[in-house]
Amino acid sequence: MTQKLGILYGVSVGTGDPELITVKGLNLLQNTSIIAFPAGINAQIGVAEKIIDPWLTKKQKKLPLNFPYVLDETQLEKAWQVAAEIIWPYLAQGEDVVFACEGDVSFYSTFTYLAETLKKQHPEVEIIRIPGVCSPMAASAALGIPLTIRQQRLVVLPALYTIEELEKVLDWAEVIVLMKVSSVYPTVWEILHKRDLLKNAWIVEKATTNDEKIYRDLENHPHLKLSYFSILIIQL
Amino acid sequence: MTQKLGILYGVSVGTGDPELITVKGLNLLQNTSIIAFPAGINAQIGVAEKIIDPWLTKKQKKLPLNFPYVLDETQLEKAWQVAAEIIWPYLAQGEDVVFACEGDVSFYSTFTYLAETLKKQHPEVEIIRIPGVCSPMAASAALGIPLTIRQQRLVVLPALYTIEELEKVLDWAEVIVLMKVSSVYPTVWEILHKRDLLKNAWIVEKATTNDEKIYRDLENHPHLKLSYFSILIIQL
Repeated sequence: MTQKLGILYGVSVGTGDPELITVKGLNLLQNTSIIAFPAGINAQIGVAEKIIDPWLTKKQKKLPLNFPYVLDETQLEKAWQVAAEIIWPYLAQGEDVVFACEGDVSFYSTFTYLAETLKKQHPEVEIIRIPGVCSPMAASAALGIPLTIRQQRLVVLPALYTIEELEKVLDWAEVIVLMKVSSVYPTVWEILHKRDLLKNAWIVEKATTNDEKIYRDLENHPHLKLSYFSILIIQL
Repeated sequence: MTQKLGILYGVSVGTGDPELITVKGLNLLQNTSIIAFPAGINAQIGVAEKIIDPWLTKKQKKLPLNFPYVLDETQLEKAWQVAAEIIWPYLAQGEDVVFACEGDVSFYSTFTYLAETLKKQHPEVEIIRIPGVCSPMAASAALGIPLTIRQQRLVVLPALYTIEELEKVLDWAEVIVLMKVSSVYPTVWEILHKRDLLKNAWIVEKATTNDEKIYRDLENHPHLKLSYFSILIIQL
């Protein structure tokens, strides 16, 4: 008889406030022995780990997995393979594994690459995703505004390739979310300023964490030193 | 001394599975005496009510509020005013009120109109939004696929005005979510068929409820009778 495999759960843990995990996600987190998550960078505790820490007990095994912040495909694939190889022995022994993802597991998440790598190596593994709170929803709630209403068209841009692209979207959509806005902020500010849209734009940094910061008066902030987890919302 | 006002909480309760409420949302739901929600249509229990029912006790006061499914602005505004007037006396007496919203409170939610109406009548009222699981995330998790990865541009269309609009978005975005696809499905099918994109498209009906239905082989389904809560995801 072959050993029954464990299940890999991709559990969305939300954007920062530990209480923004779902009840379903929390039950899985607390009833699974092996808990994986993206390791922090530079010996710092990672975002997902920080969120789940208050919910874990000492009896649970923590598996920090390294996902380097690089663009090099070979290096990334190597990291995903190593991560999959760390998780696999537990699954092979019939142990379930929870992977805790910051935000939502389907929304620009590292989990995707881990799941795909594992599935390639072991197609028989069952993978279950638990949805959660993604950053645009957390940022809107923090701002106290709706993200979208009625028939509004929403565009989410995870990065900005060209200025023309933002101009095009501004001509067309009603609501725009710019993820990871920190590196392109001065350019974005210029475009919004030119179009007199700064009063319709807001930034939320590290939404729902203790370090959450909200910028509403962007007219006065042509230069902002923003962290990686900053999101800009524009309503037209 | 003036009476301290109660707080209105807009609590996202997720898409159907009662366990997809956040821990924060559940705490508020269970520790607040007055629970409002959109009333069901045609004497049926509403979606939000169905989700929260397992979590409530008999001691809590339920306030079903009518939000008619119409486009007529006058009729809608009247309904929001009536709803605000039902909630206001509790807040005025210092009682908190939870309004349970299906999906996420910031994402095409009825709560927005209630909050705005109340704020207009009583600007001093404090309103707090608790984010939650929105339908695109629930649908992606149900499908077992990522919604977005890497630098993919996401477009959410809550309704389809013209065929040209979808064509334009198909030329540009990498991921498209069509909400409320039921009424335009045959047209959408034709466009996707023409572009050979049916194999990159999926429908999830009533994600995470007991009646959840997934359609993966759209090639074989040019005509589908879909319910209101159906969502189509296209990946290019």
